Amino acid sequence: MDEFTLAPDPDDRRLTEEVRGTDHTGAPVDTRVVVERPLTLFLNSREIVTMMTIGDHPDHLAVGYLLNQAMLGPEDEITGIDYDEDLDVVVVRTAVETDFEDKLAKKTLTSGCAQGTVFGDMMESFERVRLDPAARLKTSWLYALTAKINTAPSLYLAAGAIHGCVLCEEDRPLVYMEDVGRHNAIDKIAGWMFRNRVGPEGKIFYTTGRLTSEMVLKCVAMGIPILISRSGFTAWGVELARQANLTLIGRARGQRFLCLAGAERLVYDIDPAAVPGEAKRHRRKGAEADDAA
Amino acid sequence: MDEFTLAPDPDDRRLTEEVRGTDHTGAPVDTRVVVERPLTLFLNSREIVTMMTIGDHPDHLAVGYLLNQAMLGPEDEITGIDYDEDLDVVVVRTAVETDFEDKLAKKTLTSGCAQGTVFGDMMESFERVRLDPAARLKTSWLYALTAKINTAPSLYLAAGAIHGCVLCEEDRPLVYMEDVGRHNAIDKIAGWMFRNRVGPEGKIFYTTGRLTSEMVLKCVAMGIPILISRSGFTAWGVELARQANLTLIGRARGQRFLCLAGAERLVYDIDPAAVPGEAKRHRRKGAEADDAA
Repeated sequence: MDEFTLAPDPDDRRLTEEVRGTDHTGAPVDTRVVVERPLTLFLNSREIVTMMTIGDHPDHLAVGYLLNQAMLGPEDEITGIDYDEDLDVVVVRTAVETDFEDKLAKKTLTSGCAQGTVFGDMMESFERVRLDPAARLKTSWLYALTAKINTAPSLYLAAGAIHGCVLCEEDRPLVYMEDVGRHNAIDKIAGWMFRNRVGPEGKIFYTTGRLTSEMVLKCVAMGIPILISRSGFTAWGVELARQANLTLIGRARGQRFLCLAGAERLVYDIDPAAVPGEAKRHRRKGAEADDAA
Repeated sequence: MDEFTLAPDPDDRRLTEEVRGTDHTGAPVDTRVVVERPLTLFLNSREIVTMMTIGDHPDHLAVGYLLNQAMLGPEDEITGIDYDEDLDVVVVRTAVETDFEDKLAKKTLTSGCAQGTVFGDMMESFERVRLDPAARLKTSWLYALTAKINTAPSLYLAAGAIHGCVLCEEDRPLVYMEDVGRHNAIDKIAGWMFRNRVGPEGKIFYTTGRLTSEMVLKCVAMGIPILISRSGFTAWGVELARQANLTLIGRARGQRFLCLAGAERLVYDIDPAAVPGEAKRHRRKGAEADDAA
C-alpha cells in the first residue's frame, strides 16, 4: 500500500473558515479556524448520536464509531451507507438489525480527548484480544514515520486546534486522519480499515495525542500491537497496555522516545545520534499536547 | 480572595505513579505518570456515571459534573456529599429528588477534550444566558495571569499528560484545577464555585486547552464572560462565543494573543513590548495542545 493513500486536505475549503479577530496590538487579523459540524448517525432506523466533526469521511467515521462502540461487529455485514450533506445525516444499514441496547446500559466515561464512553463489552473484548507477539518496530521506522507525519501537509499546520491519527506499516504512513475530536480521527481509521478489509497485521498506530486509557483500549480493540505518540502517558494507559501486551511508546520527538510497555518488540537498528532533529516550523505543538516537560 | 486559594499539589503521591520504561538508547528510565482512577457518581439513589479522574476533589467534581450536565440546578439544595475512597464512589444528596431522565434522551457528542455529551437543555440555557457586557479584561491582567499560571507548580510540570483550568479575577488566579480530562477540571471549578457560593461576577476563565464548542458552552453556562486559552480555536467555538457575547481569547503566549469574539471588553493598558517572553522551561507544551503553529 502506498504512503498517504489517504491524507488530510488542508485546501478543502469546507474544513476551515476564515474569521476576523483582534491581536495583542489591537490590530485586526484574519485567521483560519477548523470547522466543526454536526453529523447525526443512524444505525438502520435507530438514531444513535450526533457527533461534532470536521465532516470529511462521514462514511468512515460512522462505521468506525459503531465498531469502536461495539454496536457493530466484524461479523456484521454493511449493506449500505447513505450520507446526506444537507441534513448532516449518515445512515449505516446492516443485513441483520443489531441489538446493542444492553450495551448502552453500563457506560464508563473515559478521560482524555475522548468521545467519552466505553461500553461494558469493550472491556470484555479487551480481555480477549491477543496482540501479535511477533510484531516488531525498528527504531529506524519510528524515526522515519514521525518525520514523514510531522512534515506532511495537514489541517493542523494550516489552522491548528485539531488532532491526528495515522495508520502505518513499517516506515510508511498509510492513512492519516484528522478531526477536532481525536476519537473521531481514530474512528475514521477504524472505519476505513473495516470497509477496505485492511487488517491490523503488521500495522503501527500513531496518534498526536496523549496515551490515555481510551487510546490504549481503542488501539487494542483494533488489534494493532504498536502505539506511538509524541505526547505523554497516563498510569492507567500504561497499565492497560502492559495487560494487553501492547507496545506503548510516548514522548517520541526528534531522537528521543520512551517505551513504557512491550519494549521487547523494539529493534534498535539505527544510532539515534544519526537522526536529524526537527525543524522548529515542523514541530507539531498540537502533538505535544500534555507531554511532560 | 487570595491567589491560588486552591492549586494543584504535585507532591500528592496519590496523583502520580513512578513507572519504569526504556528510552531511545535502550536504557531503563524511571518516569512519573499521572494516575487515572474511576469515580462512580450517584445522585441520591441513582447511579449516574463512572468517570476517570486523577481523584483529587471528588466532591467538587461530582457537583460540577451534575451542574454542567444540568442534572442539578442552582436552585437545588445539596444536603450531603459522601465520598468513599475505597469504593471510589461519591454520592450527592439533594433535598428534593431531581428528575432529569428526559435530559438523557437527546444527547450530542461534543468534540475536543470532552466528557462528550451536551444535553438538549444545555443549549436552551445557552440561549438564555446574558453575560455581563460591562465586564472588562485589561491586557496587563491577561499577561500577569498567564505568567503566574505557567510558572505555578503543577502536575503538568511534574508528569505531563494533564489539562488545567483556572478561575481568575483581574490579575489573580484563584482556583487552579487539573485533571486528565479537561472536562473534569472545568467541572471541579464549577463544583467549587457552587459549593462556595462564588458567582461569575468579575471572573475570568483560563484553560490550557482548545477553545472548542464545548469549552465555550460550559464557560457560558457558568456565566463567566471572558475565556482565555493558549491554544487554538474551532469555528463553532468562535460562532457560539459571538452568539453569547463571550470574550474569546486564544493563542495567548508571551506577548501575543488573538481575540476572536467580544473584543470590546479588552482594555489595552500595557505595551506588549514591555511584556517579558516566556522561559522555555515554563512553556506549557500541554497548553499548546492543538494550537496553530
